Amino acid sequence: MEAPANITIKGILSLLMQSIDNDGTKRNKEKSVISLGMGDPSAYSCFQVPPVASQAVAEALQSHKFNGYSPTVGLPQTRRAIAEYLSGDLRYNLSSDDVFVTSGCTQAIDVALAMLARPGSNILLPRPGFPIYELCAAFRGIEVRHFDLLPKNGWKVDLAAVEALADHNTVAMVVINPGNPCGNVYPYQHLKEIAETAERLRILIIADEVYGHLAFGCNRFVPMGVFGSTVPVLTLGSLSKRWIVPGWRLGWFVTCDPSGSFRKPKLVERIKKYFDILGGPSTFIQAAVPRILEETGEVFFKKTIKVLKQTSDICFDRTKEISCITCPHKPEGSMAVMMKLNLSLLEDISDDIDFCFKLAKEESVIILPGTAVGLRNWIRITFAVDPESLEEGLARLKSFCKRHTNEQLGS
Amino acid sequence: MEAPANITIKGILSLLMQSIDNDGTKRNKEKSVISLGMGDPSAYSCFQVPPVASQAVAEALQSHKFNGYSPTVGLPQTRRAIAEYLSGDLRYNLSSDDVFVTSGCTQAIDVALAMLARPGSNILLPRPGFPIYELCAAFRGIEVRHFDLLPKNGWKVDLAAVEALADHNTVAMVVINPGNPCGNVYPYQHLKEIAETAERLRILIIADEVYGHLAFGCNRFVPMGVFGSTVPVLTLGSLSKRWIVPGWRLGWFVTCDPSGSFRKPKLVERIKKYFDILGGPSTFIQAAVPRILEETGEVFFKKTIKVLKQTSDICFDRTKEISCITCPHKPEGSMAVMMKLNLSLLEDISDDIDFCFKLAKEESVIILPGTAVGLRNWIRITFAVDPESLEEGLARLKSFCKRHTNEQLGS
Repeated sequence: MEAPANITIKGILSLLMQSIDNDGTKRNKEKSVISLGMGDPSAYSCFQVPPVASQAVAEALQSHKFNGYSPTVGLPQTRRAIAEYLSGDLRYNLSSDDVFVTSGCTQAIDVALAMLARPGSNILLPRPGFPIYELCAAFRGIEVRHFDLLPKNGWKVDLAAVEALADHNTVAMVVINPGNPCGNVYPYQHLKEIAETAERLRILIIADEVYGHLAFGCNRFVPMGVFGSTVPVLTLGSLSKRWIVPGWRLGWFVTCDPSGSFRKPKLVERIKKYFDILGGPSTFIQAAVPRILEETGEVFFKKTIKVLKQTSDICFDRTKEISCITCPHKPEGSMAVMMKLNLSLLEDISDDIDFCFKLAKEESVIILPGTAVGLRNWIRITFAVDPESLEEGLARLKSFCKRHTNEQLGS
Repeated sequence: MEAPANITIKGILSLLMQSIDNDGTKRNKEKSVISLGMGDPSAYSCFQVPPVASQAVAEALQSHKFNGYSPTVGLPQTRRAIAEYLSGDLRYNLSSDDVFVTSGCTQAIDVALAMLARPGSNILLPRPGFPIYELCAAFRGIEVRHFDLLPKNGWKVDLAAVEALADHNTVAMVVINPGNPCGNVYPYQHLKEIAETAERLRILIIADEVYGHLAFGCNRFVPMGVFGSTVPVLTLGSLSKRWIVPGWRLGWFVTCDPSGSFRKPKLVERIKKYFDILGGPSTFIQAAVPRILEETGEVFFKKTIKVLKQTSDICFDRTKEISCITCPHKPEGSMAVMMKLNLSLLEDISDDIDFCFKLAKEESVIILPGTAVGLRNWIRITFAVDPESLEEGLARLKSFCKRHTNEQLGS
């Protein structure tokens, strides 16, 4: 059996990295590699895990109380702590039973899709989006239908497209907020409209909030679960981004369904059994979660937000100076932003993939081609990078673009 | 959609535990709960994680170098270390590319079954066996066919049954060695016969070696991968049992296929993409694996083997004194053993499930009913328990059996 044809972000970034490694030109050897490609801030000193988090994990490890199996759905105290953490932003209380602890948000995505898959079912995914959804749908046998996010309208969901795409086999739509790859944060009113649309269509919402609370623009972060009484919401999240620990693999799959219209006993039974075949996260990391959620201070969160505000501004401002790149919406959340390439101004670049491979070869700068997230001839720039590296990377991007600009058109 | 009907070990043990908690009788309150139900030795002081393992993980955590994502197939140094560790017992060298790092052996089982599933396919599983295989096959859409393990023949595989069950839709057979739930260790010659049978039937072998090296009888542990040139072997394993860290969730899925007849580029591509949708194990635990594999001393391994030899002997000897229980094969590996109930000697016990629930209520001793592993009216006793608790648990089992024995028949 063949692999699904899907492009993955890690796959394409690894090809870009290889193209640098394989290139023996003088220019390449002089320049350090700068990656503006992947949403993993842990490599940079301006993004550091809060000390209390590392301490809590180290203590749980060294207590030797958590070397054994946990229940496959998660330790009771971990489920309770996540329920309390998320309930703080809702008008109702989640219970421990609503929370299933996963090996990162990636596993939470698989749980959602595997639990909703049935013969003939389809799911509505945003374009641009996060390609793990498409890959997971391919493995779990769910048809994918794409609705557009509208760049000129703050990357809002094209709700008319959602209405047009949905049929009686549609099981859910995915909403990623704060947005990856677009860097948008939806206002309350738009989330309400999405919920009402889903309710009318009788489909669930999968709310990917892995970037939850990482908002630094005008719109504060509103979790989709706020509308759980309108439509059942499956909330996916993790420690990865807000605590800068993507490698710890600690996430959650949560049923925000206060009316219980989705959370029937037979479904819960099925979810529990599915967790029996998943590997799940380490017990001692789970054991540290209550302390991590309770004791991480506002000072830490504010510092991260401040750095992301600064780096996203750098990203927006510097690319304004590049004629062949346009940013339709200033980033206000998450760790990445989408920008449009104007290929007509470039004389020897055929598309976004060609752009990114030539940029990697010539400037040792890695940027994700938009094709990887569903938008051809766009690029995704990650700004979860220290300001100095970001400035240097964007300066190289500018010089690359200048070099490839058709002088007659560009001047 | 409903949950698969499969019984899980954790599910039934949790019901047994609840039946103790819910029971308010005087006898119950006086007695501490003794669980001889689950293969998790980490609760007992005689089974302790080697200090070098905890130190290596703590150092990787505190270095802050491993908070980020690892490649989804695993860190290169982790893959290399596992390849070297396993190659030590083979006549050929595994490469890093043969190794995929998983979230415990459970996730390795899912990888194997998900990668082999195709419409109409079936898999041959041992009876008794490990029920996660059945559950995983149900979720991944593979038909299950059971071959017997022969209790009077050292729990060897009934190879004639394997031949009779296999057809052109059979993708693989599962061999668990050292054996769970039977406690057997297959001799070289039997493994060779299994490999030759599988080769003749043109099916793969999934070799579950999560209890690898935990052998304390006459037969030394021989990994199935030794016969990788005869038939492609998918070896599943983990740190869980040999290092007494089941909660760390660090396992491996390894292609032992020196002739490359299974490991085609398209399949490898498919496996890699499947890993992109799995959560995978923590990066910092992965980073500790090379040191854990290299530096854990023989003294530690020998101590574990010595304790398991002692506790398995206690288990075998004490149950010999119980007339309604027969052990057909003295345990020589792993952490559990199967024993047969002679219900005709018991006056008010209807089957193994009734036996185990009454035992839990009356004696606060938890033993797994054989039904959970595919053998009705058998029981599985885990001996990875400290000797004192085991003696006490078996004494209570004896007194329970005596109390329920029909005096006229039993005397």
